[in-house]
Amino acid sequence: MNISVTALHRFCTDALLNAGVDPADAKTTADVLVTTDTWGTFTHGTKALRAYIRRVRCNGLKKCGTPRIVKEGPAFALVDGDSSIAMVSSVFAMRTAIDKARTAGIAFSGLRNNCHYGAAGYYATMAIPENMIGFSMANDIPSVNAPGAKGSVMGSNPFAFAAPAGSEFPVMLDMATSTVAGGKVFAAATLGKPIPPGWLLDAEANPTRDATLFSHAASLTALGGYKGFCIAFMIEVLSAVLTGSAISREVLSWTFSEPSLPTGHGAAFMAINIESFLPIANFKNRMDHLIAEIHSAPKTGAETLFAPGEIEFRHREKALRDGIDLPDDVVMSLRALAEESGLKFPPQ
Amino acid sequence: MNISVTALHRFCTDALLNAGVDPADAKTTADVLVTTDTWGTFTHGTKALRAYIRRVRCNGLKKCGTPRIVKEGPAFALVDGDSSIAMVSSVFAMRTAIDKARTAGIAFSGLRNNCHYGAAGYYATMAIPENMIGFSMANDIPSVNAPGAKGSVMGSNPFAFAAPAGSEFPVMLDMATSTVAGGKVFAAATLGKPIPPGWLLDAEANPTRDATLFSHAASLTALGGYKGFCIAFMIEVLSAVLTGSAISREVLSWTFSEPSLPTGHGAAFMAINIESFLPIANFKNRMDHLIAEIHSAPKTGAETLFAPGEIEFRHREKALRDGIDLPDDVVMSLRALAEESGLKFPPQ
Repeated sequence: MNISVTALHRFCTDALLNAGVDPADAKTTADVLVTTDTWGTFTHGTKALRAYIRRVRCNGLKKCGTPRIVKEGPAFALVDGDSSIAMVSSVFAMRTAIDKARTAGIAFSGLRNNCHYGAAGYYATMAIPENMIGFSMANDIPSVNAPGAKGSVMGSNPFAFAAPAGSEFPVMLDMATSTVAGGKVFAAATLGKPIPPGWLLDAEANPTRDATLFSHAASLTALGGYKGFCIAFMIEVLSAVLTGSAISREVLSWTFSEPSLPTGHGAAFMAINIESFLPIANFKNRMDHLIAEIHSAPKTGAETLFAPGEIEFRHREKALRDGIDLPDDVVMSLRALAEESGLKFPPQ
Repeated sequence: MNISVTALHRFCTDALLNAGVDPADAKTTADVLVTTDTWGTFTHGTKALRAYIRRVRCNGLKKCGTPRIVKEGPAFALVDGDSSIAMVSSVFAMRTAIDKARTAGIAFSGLRNNCHYGAAGYYATMAIPENMIGFSMANDIPSVNAPGAKGSVMGSNPFAFAAPAGSEFPVMLDMATSTVAGGKVFAAATLGKPIPPGWLLDAEANPTRDATLFSHAASLTALGGYKGFCIAFMIEVLSAVLTGSAISREVLSWTFSEPSLPTGHGAAFMAINIESFLPIANFKNRMDHLIAEIHSAPKTGAETLFAPGEIEFRHREKALRDGIDLPDDVVMSLRALAEESGLKFPPQ
């Protein structure tokens, strides 16, 4: 289904308002989720809104929470999310990092009492218009295997990085530390599609292509094996151990666990002020130079070698112009949400 | 060959002094390289000393350079390495980040006019005794393919992370963003061993197991494909674009390029002061909890599921007790260095 960015944003905002969410928070949440859809990252966009709102209605997420700084210094902050919708707490925490980085050069913002925060990339990209480099990461319930283990050992702990460029698109890396994000496996299961080899291991750690086994009887493979496991471990340390959040198996599932309970997710955000190091125009020229080098590399057949995030930013340009082509699993989820909210989807 | 840590350290120091290197810098360099060997990371330890000293003798690296801060603020510094031996500049830059993080909470130190800095992990682990979390990363000449490209597109740009624990070993992640570091392929070529499938692509981007093709006619594969390429790109931005260092193809090879020229490598270091966020004892308990969870995970057959860096720290314990078992390629390199330096290896 094709829908305009404005119409999708309005629907999401209305659904949130209908659940009693504070209007400013509803806008922030819709901003994050709709932007994610414009990138074509449909596994982490508006599809998830139904589950978030379910937790809001059951009080696992507060309708009008107040994320606040509980500890801070020149270049750091520890933020308590107050079990607000994770988009609200995460935007607050990233904004805090950006504000502090302006004078300190870099700043780190740890966040506890968070929930599933959607696409890591959104928060990292908040740094771009500030002429900063942005980072974001979060933990989640174990769903990923480690080589040598049977079952899930770490979360798919996502990581994102974003930086501005000059005449080229900005860059963004937004990745799960599993081979693919769990959302891709869920989407395949919903749509009845087989998954490629290499994504999933069954309960005995044998390869499987049966997406329906996930996550109760299968684990995602770690990105590149042991290294991906180690990166996920690092993210667990930064987003959970350091921030006083739930660690690994202590985290509750944002989709399956009792919706009246906070999930306890942690997250971490970082911003680097580019002008602390060199004039922004100089940095942007240097970025364009690096990106041009990627573009001009000899290719095996592919027409373009894309810089990180370039595909997403191209999708966004098209989405803003022509609307978003929502996949069926997203439409199904939004229709169900509309029904539960007394709204129409697509909105009239 | 088995050699004691003290004897290996003395030999490295003597070889550096023989080349005219400042005594304090000789000690620092030997500290880094010998520690790396104690971890069993022989590709990045004393084996490389011969090539570093060659550049010192030819003035591509300064005998007595003076790394200095050229720009700084509450939580950042830009360091010019002055083409000193990279271990010297990198230790200086990491120390700077640690000092600033103590009051700021986090600090970032960018380094330009550096050279090949050996094992990224060494600098990250400097944070451990300071009750901090450490990071290090660096760029290098392109040697890694990106999916869709023919030939090398990015450096194997290493990344390291380290954090203290309580009764468990500290943790360390030290990885190339290629499937394996180029040093492993060079070592296989020297020892005449075949390499496993998946490590290397020939000039047409077809898989090859011929280690001798690297690096003139083959490229390393990127860790996990496109994601590894994107992580390498991020490291290029942080260590080179932001620091004013040589970018990608502008970097010279520390082994093959004219040894009278500086290579122009960049690097970046970061430290997070744990006590800014929570009491150190609390953090260490939480780390032990996470590590214990890894250890107790069900296994497919492996006796132990190791936390990141645990294998290296176990190796180090053994090396300090029983000496280091140097592989043949390292012995060959140290013997050649001894000959060039008028020294004996092993030292008498």
